Formats: sequence, C-alpha cells, structure tokens
Amino acid sequence: MRTVKKAKRMQSLAAGIKRDGRTIAFVPTMGALHEGHLSLVRRARKLGDIVAVSIYVNRTQFGPGEDLKKYPRTLERDKRLLRLLDVDYLFLPDDSEMYPSGYLTYVETEGITSVLEGKSRPTHFRGVTTVVAKLLNIVQPDVAVFGQKDAQQAIVISRMVADLNIPVKVIVAPTVREKTGLALSSRNRYFSPEQIRRASCIYHGLKRGRELINSGVTDSKKVVSEILRIIDDAEGTTIDYISINDANTLDHVRKITREVLISAAVELDGVRLIDNIKAKPGRTGC
Amino acid sequence: MRTVKKAKRMQSLAAGIKRDGRTIAFVPTMGALHEGHLSLVRRARKLGDIVAVSIYVNRTQFGPGEDLKKYPRTLERDKRLLRLLDVDYLFLPDDSEMYPSGYLTYVETEGITSVLEGKSRPTHFRGVTTVVAKLLNIVQPDVAVFGQKDAQQAIVISRMVADLNIPVKVIVAPTVREKTGLALSSRNRYFSPEQIRRASCIYHGLKRGRELINSGVTDSKKVVSEILRIIDDAEGTTIDYISINDANTLDHVRKITREVLISAAVELDGVRLIDNIKAKPGRTGC
Repeated sequence: MRTVKKAKRMQSLAAGIKRDGRTIAFVPTMGALHEGHLSLVRRARKLGDIVAVSIYVNRTQFGPGEDLKKYPRTLERDKRLLRLLDVDYLFLPDDSEMYPSGYLTYVETEGITSVLEGKSRPTHFRGVTTVVAKLLNIVQPDVAVFGQKDAQQAIVISRMVADLNIPVKVIVAPTVREKTGLALSSRNRYFSPEQIRRASCIYHGLKRGRELINSGVTDSKKVVSEILRIIDDAEGTTIDYISINDANTLDHVRKITREVLISAAVELDGVRLIDNIKAKPGRTGC
Repeated sequence: MRTVKKAKRMQSLAAGIKRDGRTIAFVPTMGALHEGHLSLVRRARKLGDIVAVSIYVNRTQFGPGEDLKKYPRTLERDKRLLRLLDVDYLFLPDDSEMYPSGYLTYVETEGITSVLEGKSRPTHFRGVTTVVAKLLNIVQPDVAVFGQKDAQQAIVISRMVADLNIPVKVIVAPTVREKTGLALSSRNRYFSPEQIRRASCIYHGLKRGRELINSGVTDSKKVVSEILRIIDDAEGTTIDYISINDANTLDHVRKITREVLISAAVELDGVRLIDNIKAKPGRTGC
C-alpha cells in the first residue's frame, strides 16, 4: 500500500492508472476504521482493479461545538487494517493540502440537506459535498463506496454527483452492526460495553418501527411515537429527532404508502449517534 | 466536427480520447461567436490534440430582468465558424440536459465574487462556477481557455478549479477589440456602427487610466475620476462602476503599488458592457 499525501501526486497516479485501462474503486473515510469501513473496502476490492482509500478528518463538516478536536484518530492501526485488505493507495492529506490559505469554494446541494441531519447540523452537508467533490477530483475513481449508515449523506452525494456530472458510480453498502444491534461508528469508541448495550435501543426502536410499517400501519406519527417510547425508555438518551421520510427524496411522509427511511439521531451520555432503517408498507392499511 | 448533445455521451467520448493518450483543449461559450471566441478556439487548437467547444446559454448566470431571453443565438453560423477552425467536438446540451428536474447542486466561490460584477449581479458567478464545473466534468479537458475580457470570471474560475482540485489547466487569452477599441462581445450585436463608436469611450477611458498609472499616479481615486469623466462625456452612457482592484486578489486598491485591474461596467443605450485593462505602477510616485 502506497501512502500519498499530495493531491497533485494522487491525480497523476490516478491518470496513469486510467491510461493503463484499469479501474479505481474508492472509499473516502475519516479514519478510526471499524468493521463498517472495512466492509466498504472489501466491496471496493471487488469493484475496481485498484482500490484507493482516503483518511481525512474534514473540518468543514463539523459545526462549532462539535467533536472535531476529539474525533478519534488511530492512523497506525488504520494503515495495518487497510494493508491486510490489499488496498493499493491511501490518500492521506493534511488540512493545508485540502484547504490551503485563500481557499474560497464550496459545493452545496440544496433542499435535501435542510432536513434531518442538515436541520440539526446546518453546515454539515456543505462540508461533506465540498470535500467529496474534491476527493473525487483528486482520486478520479470509477466507483466510490459509501455506507447506508449515513443514509442522508449517501442520498446527498448521489444527487451532487448526478447534478455536477461527476463521472463516478456511487455504491451504497449496508450498515454493519454490533451483536447488540448498535450501528458501528467511530464514535462508539467513546463508549463502555454497558453504554453500547444501552445505545442499542436506537436500533431496537427502528426495528419496531419497521415491524409496524410492515404490518400495515400507515400513520407515520403512530410509528414515530412508538419508536420514541422505546428509545426514551433507555437510560441516558436524549432524542434529537425520529423521522420518517421518502427513501429517495427525503420528503417528510405522513401517510406511508411507499418505501420510507426511518431515521433517528440520539445523544447517549453526550455522544451523538445516528442510525436508520428502510421500510416498505405492508399490504393492509390501518 | 461532431455535435454531441448528451453529457454521458460526451463523457464517454472524452474517456476514450484520454485512454488513447490524447489531450483535450476546451473552450466553453454561450454561442453568438465573434472573433474573440475564435481567438480562444485558435489558441485551444495549439494546446490540445482534440478541440472541444461548448455552446450553452446558461440560465443560472442570468439574473432576473437580464437579457437571457433575447441573448443572441446564431447556431448555424457558429457551427460553420467552428468547422472552419477544425474543431473536433461541439458540445451542445439543452436546459433539460444541464439542469434536469430535481436539480439541486451549486458551486460557489466566495469573497472574490462579491465585488465588481458580483456586486452588480449577485447570483451571476454562482451560475458561472456551477456550469463551468459541470462542463469540465463532462468534457474532461486537459486545458480550458477563457477570455481576459471577463477578467473577474477568469480569476473566479481559476480559484474554483484550484480549490476543487479539478485536473485542468486554465489559460486566459487576451481581449480582442473592434478597430475603435471596443472589446468584442456577443452583446455588440445589439449596436449600430454609431453606437459602437460611442461605446468605444469605455476602452479609451481605461487606456487613459493605465497611462496615468504608468506615469506614476498612485491615487486610485484620481485615476477613477479621470476615467469616469471620459466615459461620462460620451452620449448615452450610464456608469455602473469604474474600479481599481488588485490584479490577483481583486481586493480594492487605494494606493497603487502593484499590478492592478482597472475595470468598468457601463450601460450604453440600455445594453450593459464590461471591459478591463491591467496596469503596473510607474516608477515615480505622485
């Protein structure tokens, strides 16, 4: 595995790979890799001749008061894991490479970024779309793999890629979970096993919501209040939102008649967690 | 010359050209081609193995009340001119190809877009950076050629390309002028020969400003008021701005100690014209 720190160097390596007629599959990450990331890298390994992974904790997607400074950084361990998965290139820029002095340009996808995470974190997606546009221009992949765990991010990035005609195929891979059901997240490192057990109520709430929808409940308010009850019952949880939205447009859904995304953002002992699950309505209405 | 209307088709043609190890030089235009555009195409012909030109009147860079609807369109003539210059590809998308239903993404370069043209036309550069980012992703050129006539546009695009790591070299080619000195513009088609003569006062004013700076005048207010007097003297002119800015950062300049851009936006008989000239300070101060 070759570590590349400069954007221009990565671009010229990518151009060479393309000229040779080989394809690049890319997984952008913020490091602190867990089994969720590794599942994306394994998927990339099947999709491209060359696999590139980036590790960059992107400051523009953190809001004021968020955990940018204390975001977990485990670079040496990350590198070992990526080598084991036969990754070809690690793109590892620093802040001055990504946002040099005089930097002025932002990519913004409107509408779908003003709900859910975008409502709670107003500048978050602008940071995400900007850094992903940059990374795609630098690594020039044929395929890029994102996780379903950040469902809204995957939808926003797919929209941005289509809108700006970026020549890459976006793949969204399933969420990987702890045995307890908790979605894997780099922020789970902040937790003890006991906290992980409590945090799993988020997934159990979402699953219960899906069951209700599958069984024919179409009133999204009813579903949300049942999920709310389950998560609220767990000790130390503060709910930011529980929401049911169209799985493609993220429009808010009152009556569930098509596939929806049930999503939740919950603070557990001060650490903010998100999770989601898709659900299709059952045949009977009620 | 091959005319391509679909973005995906153009991308796959571009990818094939790249795989063959050939380079692409690109000139984006809004059509109504004049000798200024043709000089950019001739420059592109020297810079790339393959020359691509786009013609697209980009609605997102026109403000409300601007001349989007009446903007001159001379497609058949444009095509003949481009064929004569041995252009390989004409990318000719329509609105629904560039901004399909559900379109949500914009590229914005801040700071340098809030002065000069950006101050008079607040949404203009957002439209320019968005469409240019899209066109660069579609045509995938090695080199793209822009005109110095739109000086601020060239600076904004260069900044956007650097910030977003778009792998293209930006070339800025000199302004082509009428014999009278008036900068060529598609909007000159709105004019009679007599109006063209009157409109040439803009260039004469700018030239006088450069003379003053060359001769050692460092007070930008003095230079501006002299240019203002010259343009104001011509019949039918309404001045939007005359401004002296740092040639690289577009910061407003009071005391001229380094290379500056002198720029003007003037309405003549209701048609808005812009022009600019660079000037370096003389050796003597005054």
